[in-house]
Amino acid sequence: MARPKLQDVATRAGVSVTTVSRVLNNRGYLSDEVRARVNAAIAELGYRPDGIARSLIGRKSGLVGVIVPTVADPFFGELVAAIENALAERGYKVLLCDCQENPEREAEYLDLLQANRVDGVITSTHNREVRGYDAAELPLVAVDRRIGPRVPIVRGDNAAGGRLATEHLLARGARRPLLVTATDHPGNDRARAYRDVVAAHGIEPRVRAYGYSTPADERRALIETWLAETGADAVFATDDLTALMALEWAHKTGRRVPDDVRIVGYDGSAAVRLGMPGLTTVRQPIARLGARAAELIVDRIADPDAPPAAEPPLPVELRLGWTS
Amino acid sequence: MARPKLQDVATRAGVSVTTVSRVLNNRGYLSDEVRARVNAAIAELGYRPDGIARSLIGRKSGLVGVIVPTVADPFFGELVAAIENALAERGYKVLLCDCQENPEREAEYLDLLQANRVDGVITSTHNREVRGYDAAELPLVAVDRRIGPRVPIVRGDNAAGGRLATEHLLARGARRPLLVTATDHPGNDRARAYRDVVAAHGIEPRVRAYGYSTPADERRALIETWLAETGADAVFATDDLTALMALEWAHKTGRRVPDDVRIVGYDGSAAVRLGMPGLTTVRQPIARLGARAAELIVDRIADPDAPPAAEPPLPVELRLGWTS
Repeated sequence: MARPKLQDVATRAGVSVTTVSRVLNNRGYLSDEVRARVNAAIAELGYRPDGIARSLIGRKSGLVGVIVPTVADPFFGELVAAIENALAERGYKVLLCDCQENPEREAEYLDLLQANRVDGVITSTHNREVRGYDAAELPLVAVDRRIGPRVPIVRGDNAAGGRLATEHLLARGARRPLLVTATDHPGNDRARAYRDVVAAHGIEPRVRAYGYSTPADERRALIETWLAETGADAVFATDDLTALMALEWAHKTGRRVPDDVRIVGYDGSAAVRLGMPGLTTVRQPIARLGARAAELIVDRIADPDAPPAAEPPLPVELRLGWTS
Repeated sequence: MARPKLQDVATRAGVSVTTVSRVLNNRGYLSDEVRARVNAAIAELGYRPDGIARSLIGRKSGLVGVIVPTVADPFFGELVAAIENALAERGYKVLLCDCQENPEREAEYLDLLQANRVDGVITSTHNREVRGYDAAELPLVAVDRRIGPRVPIVRGDNAAGGRLATEHLLARGARRPLLVTATDHPGNDRARAYRDVVAAHGIEPRVRAYGYSTPADERRALIETWLAETGADAVFATDDLTALMALEWAHKTGRRVPDDVRIVGYDGSAAVRLGMPGLTTVRQPIARLGARAAELIVDRIADPDAPPAAEPPLPVELRLGWTS
């Protein structure tokens, strides 16, 4: 059977196409009875609005939802600034969702998708598996997060970054490098690269994961405990703020950096490069990540049914400071 | 003559109230001829939609526009995160405008106001006098910026902050403190406090201003020149990133901090406190600034014609590190 059309839903529900459109867009007055009849018809037929139907039934909003953990983090602040700049050039505005401390909000925000209030969404959170994404029929682009097979992922080359950082620490003489990261699962390419490199050198891996939603103070306490208990002579932190916490720990406990402990971070945002230029870090191409995500979402809004092409990861580079 | 109403515009243009509403909201199909007639009637009558008319003619969008220089700056990133969190609790979403390198965009963005696409705007830019704000009929709240007599300003206590920083440097023995700030005009309370304090100590002011839109690299070069040419034994920078540039200059040129040069910044964002905990800085209550701005804009959306009450500045505190 052919994919059901808007007209099929209207016929089945015994209403006009306009009424179906109103239900889909959640606009205008509708009785509960009509709404229920239309929703039943949608469910029975398995109707999903496609790009053309959507452009017929609803005006474009000109809005792209951008979901991030928090723009208070310099990496995400810079990423959102880059996305916003690139979208503005293409006539789109950014609806911002800053979800870190409040994962329910991410799901709530996704309701906007269903109500067609945004034309597309760029997401870069890690809170958990938010089921709303599966149901979302709107164009989606992920930054450094796996959502589903049809959602393109824009990301830096995490495997290369993890390798660069770990090899650099070993080359500088580290023999007990500690990896501090958010989650230690198979999809964490930075962690996998660390494990591969230390294994190749016959060194036992030391990995500690703090979980994405750990508040900064708690994370700091965890990191200090881990540094003390593992007897690490080096730290590879998969984000710069964690690396800076390790640096602060070294300062407080009288460790010399890099002689007693070598430290490498990850991200290399402009704020960190400016504020702490001495930090050795894997610099991500943040402006390019944001610009590419913006470009892709605009393409997908124009043609929502195009199969997503594989996005090659963008190159990263090791930026040497005095901490390693 | 009484203030013209929507009906007056409709009568004069010879169209229905609904048609005037469509023109005002830029919605639905309208011929150029009808649009021109309505716009002429609006101009002739000097019609401005008031709060009641607006709620009659257009559905609330549930959106608040937030205009900042850039969320890549940790202060503004944290401010926007706080605004977004507080607005989300009240059922509003944030439409973000990140305007730093592109002041035209601020004016362009203000067109959204006129098109009634947002229910209100919080602005915290300093680009220039953007005339759009005068014409804007939507509720406005400013963060640390003077827009006009009817626009409330949420801000930290800049006079107290400038005094705390300057008095601290003098108490530590500084005799040639340099003020580095964005603009040196009478509305800059941090600069005025610096001038008052040094004058009270019989010390000649040393003030250098770099201009808000100066790119980071250029700003860095300027600051290095000024530090060298003024023979300063202390620096009070009215933002942390500039203070960190001064710290980096001291490091590169072999100055000891604080023995040769004492450094105090301003803002104390979480990212800077985390990344550079040793920086002495005036800490602004960023979360409270954001929450208060959100609260005020929601109040003004509910009652756009209420006269704005004076907002007392929120307290700041000097946070001591090792740089001073």
